[in-house]
Amino acid sequence: MELSSLQKARYQYNPKLPGMLRNGIAEICVKEGLETQSVADQEKIKALFPNTYGKKEITFEKGANTSTPKKQVVGVILSGGQAPGGHNVVCGLYDALKATNKENVLYGFKKGPSGLLDDDYLIFDDEYINQFRNTGGFDIIGSGRTKLETKEQFAVAAEVCKKHGITAIVIIGGDDSNTNAAVLAEYFAANNTGVQVIGCPKTIDGDLKNEDIEISFGFDTATKTYSELIGNIERDANSAKKYWHFVKVMGRSASHVALECALETQPNICLVSEEVAAKKMSLSEIADYIADSVEARSNNGMNFGVAIIPEGVVEFVPEFSVLIHEINELLAGAKAEAFNALPTWADKYAFIEKGLTPESMAVFAILPQGIQQQLFLERDPHGNVQVSLIESEKLFSEMVKNKLAERKAAGTYKGKFSALHHFFGYEGRCAFPSNFDSDYCYSLGYNAFMLIQYGYTGYLSKVSNLSAPAAQWVAGGMPITKMMNIERRHGEDKPVIRKALVELEGNPFKYFAAHREQWAVETCYTYPGAIQYYGPTEVCDITTKTLALEQAK
Amino acid sequence: MELSSLQKARYQYNPKLPGMLRNGIAEICVKEGLETQSVADQEKIKALFPNTYGKKEITFEKGANTSTPKKQVVGVILSGGQAPGGHNVVCGLYDALKATNKENVLYGFKKGPSGLLDDDYLIFDDEYINQFRNTGGFDIIGSGRTKLETKEQFAVAAEVCKKHGITAIVIIGGDDSNTNAAVLAEYFAANNTGVQVIGCPKTIDGDLKNEDIEISFGFDTATKTYSELIGNIERDANSAKKYWHFVKVMGRSASHVALECALETQPNICLVSEEVAAKKMSLSEIADYIADSVEARSNNGMNFGVAIIPEGVVEFVPEFSVLIHEINELLAGAKAEAFNALPTWADKYAFIEKGLTPESMAVFAILPQGIQQQLFLERDPHGNVQVSLIESEKLFSEMVKNKLAERKAAGTYKGKFSALHHFFGYEGRCAFPSNFDSDYCYSLGYNAFMLIQYGYTGYLSKVSNLSAPAAQWVAGGMPITKMMNIERRHGEDKPVIRKALVELEGNPFKYFAAHREQWAVETCYTYPGAIQYYGPTEVCDITTKTLALEQAK
Repeated sequence: MELSSLQKARYQYNPKLPGMLRNGIAEICVKEGLETQSVADQEKIKALFPNTYGKKEITFEKGANTSTPKKQVVGVILSGGQAPGGHNVVCGLYDALKATNKENVLYGFKKGPSGLLDDDYLIFDDEYINQFRNTGGFDIIGSGRTKLETKEQFAVAAEVCKKHGITAIVIIGGDDSNTNAAVLAEYFAANNTGVQVIGCPKTIDGDLKNEDIEISFGFDTATKTYSELIGNIERDANSAKKYWHFVKVMGRSASHVALECALETQPNICLVSEEVAAKKMSLSEIADYIADSVEARSNNGMNFGVAIIPEGVVEFVPEFSVLIHEINELLAGAKAEAFNALPTWADKYAFIEKGLTPESMAVFAILPQGIQQQLFLERDPHGNVQVSLIESEKLFSEMVKNKLAERKAAGTYKGKFSALHHFFGYEGRCAFPSNFDSDYCYSLGYNAFMLIQYGYTGYLSKVSNLSAPAAQWVAGGMPITKMMNIERRHGEDKPVIRKALVELEGNPFKYFAAHREQWAVETCYTYPGAIQYYGPTEVCDITTKTLALEQAK
Repeated sequence: MELSSLQKARYQYNPKLPGMLRNGIAEICVKEGLETQSVADQEKIKALFPNTYGKKEITFEKGANTSTPKKQVVGVILSGGQAPGGHNVVCGLYDALKATNKENVLYGFKKGPSGLLDDDYLIFDDEYINQFRNTGGFDIIGSGRTKLETKEQFAVAAEVCKKHGITAIVIIGGDDSNTNAAVLAEYFAANNTGVQVIGCPKTIDGDLKNEDIEISFGFDTATKTYSELIGNIERDANSAKKYWHFVKVMGRSASHVALECALETQPNICLVSEEVAAKKMSLSEIADYIADSVEARSNNGMNFGVAIIPEGVVEFVPEFSVLIHEINELLAGAKAEAFNALPTWADKYAFIEKGLTPESMAVFAILPQGIQQQLFLERDPHGNVQVSLIESEKLFSEMVKNKLAERKAAGTYKGKFSALHHFFGYEGRCAFPSNFDSDYCYSLGYNAFMLIQYGYTGYLSKVSNLSAPAAQWVAGGMPITKMMNIERRHGEDKPVIRKALVELEGNPFKYFAAHREQWAVETCYTYPGAIQYYGPTEVCDITTKTLALEQAK
């Protein structure tokens, strides 16, 4: 296998642990804090988790290790989309496990949670794991999207654990996976399997965040990778001075990625889905908002710019959601056949015009034809519109173009407008983890093992005080039930970890809102450049602007 | 202005000069070599360049500076598309100029060659130029695509130079711009203006390359940026194991970028336009070639992969060029109106079927409908098909999908195929220059001033032996006429610098060809990661695989 020189160099990197974990396994003791309550719906959550609810928050400290010596056989699972640093969680877990007892064993279940159900695994050794230290990707064992949520699955999982003598499972995943980790922990406890379950907070989307999770791992590296590219494009825009670049970034349900990239690069425009929803903005209003910047810049001789569009933004536009709902109704079941039989787009358009409410038809009518056709022609196997396929960066650039044509006709705009489009997502999910993510993930894994060794279950591996240097980080654990509330999902009340959307009253958004008017008109671009792993600490070891603003005193 | 921490750190970087230029201006002397001949068409080129043809190659050496003390007023121009390192050419030029004589002046003509014609300029000082050291972009003075090629333009340029007392012009550009630099130098010499002209070789495309230009600046940084992203996507593909990624990279007329990225990342597939042309490959053959890899990998349980597609590849497919030509004929002039008046796509299709030759119709028929419609519906103001708008990454993934459907029906293929698409171009043109490009560009600029100071004109700033450490680089100059031949352009014989295509007999392609069968079937991905500016020299200071293979003994 051919290795890049960076990959070889990264093997030599020693991830930084929180200070309290640096004195060796024998010198890590536990300090228990107060008993916890879920953030809402306490009675309901308590009833659902009789064996794991209300446990104490715990912190590790320097002190004599009082855990019971016992051979540990741990299984680890990567769940869901890739995030930089996943390999280091596994490495930290492995190193703590082996440092505690050479006889301890780490199983890796392959291709996500299904590996546990299918009993598809590998057993880690030094030679294998050393190839993955400080590297990106989830290829160490693969990942998958199977959800571990039914009693039947839990029973199979219990059997597999029993077969291998597994004492604990570590699930590395997002909000759903950690919710499921808590449910599995409760099942294992209720059934006296003796198997513990620990979760680790992963997602590049940044929406797994609360008072106990300062940042999910991968968010730092992914946003730095996107910001590198957006900064490069800004510099290109500012050099060529002839294009508006519409840059879509990953993030279906929250705009943390877009906002962090905007804080890093200071583009002319950044849409924030949560604000669009809160202000009930229409597509036309959004297009006008962008067109205002294009016009103002053009008046200053700058026929170029950069706009960041969060992937999921159209789903937050109320009138658009209504339109989608109506289209789904209009084509439900057999009605789709009648529609498909219409020979021309003009016939189809007439059918649509008759079928939609006047309000939705008004929304539909202003969409570019390409998007109109996509909404009707590309549907999923259930006949539903595939909202995720909508190229919102092209939708908005086309609508802005139309707005500008109107303004030109009205004589208020005289500039030139040429748009280019980009989508950044897959580029960032498997980058070599930044030093921050390398350190944070290794610490999460190391810490996860300490929670296992001290007998905890249903806990999330928690590392905090993350805007300080690693030496000052605080390592510990928090019952996952503490982060839960009851939400309606697919017609059922479910205990879930609350998804963190961008808070419009939070410091990151407020900082953005205070500056964006200037950014929209002037050229205030900042060029972050590529992630650096070596060199000055202010270049290599600083995490996100979002976290810095959130933790600003 | 807000600066990123990397930008601040990069200001501190001292670009490395060739060893022979490191002893200070007073210790640089000239060694003249042999008189030169153009690479072809010597008599014709000589006749066109009576004043600048046949001059000697020169090399700089350590030794007493014998140039005539004279106040120099130099104008610099950035021409064409951005390439990382352009700012450093200007910085090197400025530093040598000021080190020679504090009274020397550097003008920057704005927005490309038109700045010289419009007398639109700035005068550099330390404070201004220091903001741009070791940064990407051309925003220091802007760039533009105006060509300096007519006598009328030259006369205006001479006037502007006279007005400011300009003694020399440095043109930083690609093959066309350097050709024009030579023509301008000849004009200035023939008219006894006393103004010298020096060229510097820029282009991320890598096609400005010959025995005197080992590499054009920007190619190193741009391909490293694309390779970072392709490597990240490979790692994502190998983790998720469910997508084929089709990655288009910049490069209209040559595939150097695609080939270098392939050497860096070892993808499953990389098309090389020059090979497609040489083998007269059809679209169907190319699609089958890719589908073979998809099928073979699928048989090994790997329903994922990465294919690199050079931006201009379809223009190298002979049958496709014929088709485009026929479409342009079919819609020429008034015929387009009749076509546009046809109400439905079915009517239009019938019209097309009647108008194309059977051979071209066969090619047209296998194209995905989206591409078919694009060819007919999106034409430029002259009615011509806009080949550059064709999304070749989507064209090939769609054709591969169709091939696989046929194979599935025939029972030879049983896998799953889901494709994702990417285009990388603008992301790399303005990245912070790699250490190599920082050093190389600074040296080109420094060296350009030494050529001016020693009275040369019509020369290209030449720095060679570039696969060795900078201390061993060789600095000098080469008459641009030496690189010229006569080519037919727009119906006229023109003296031009020959464009360098990928040589199918060259080491880089041969290395690729020797390995690609293995790469197509196995997973041999290499993950280069982000460009590093600090850290181990083998990570930070190595230039391209292409150059290493070309200069391999």
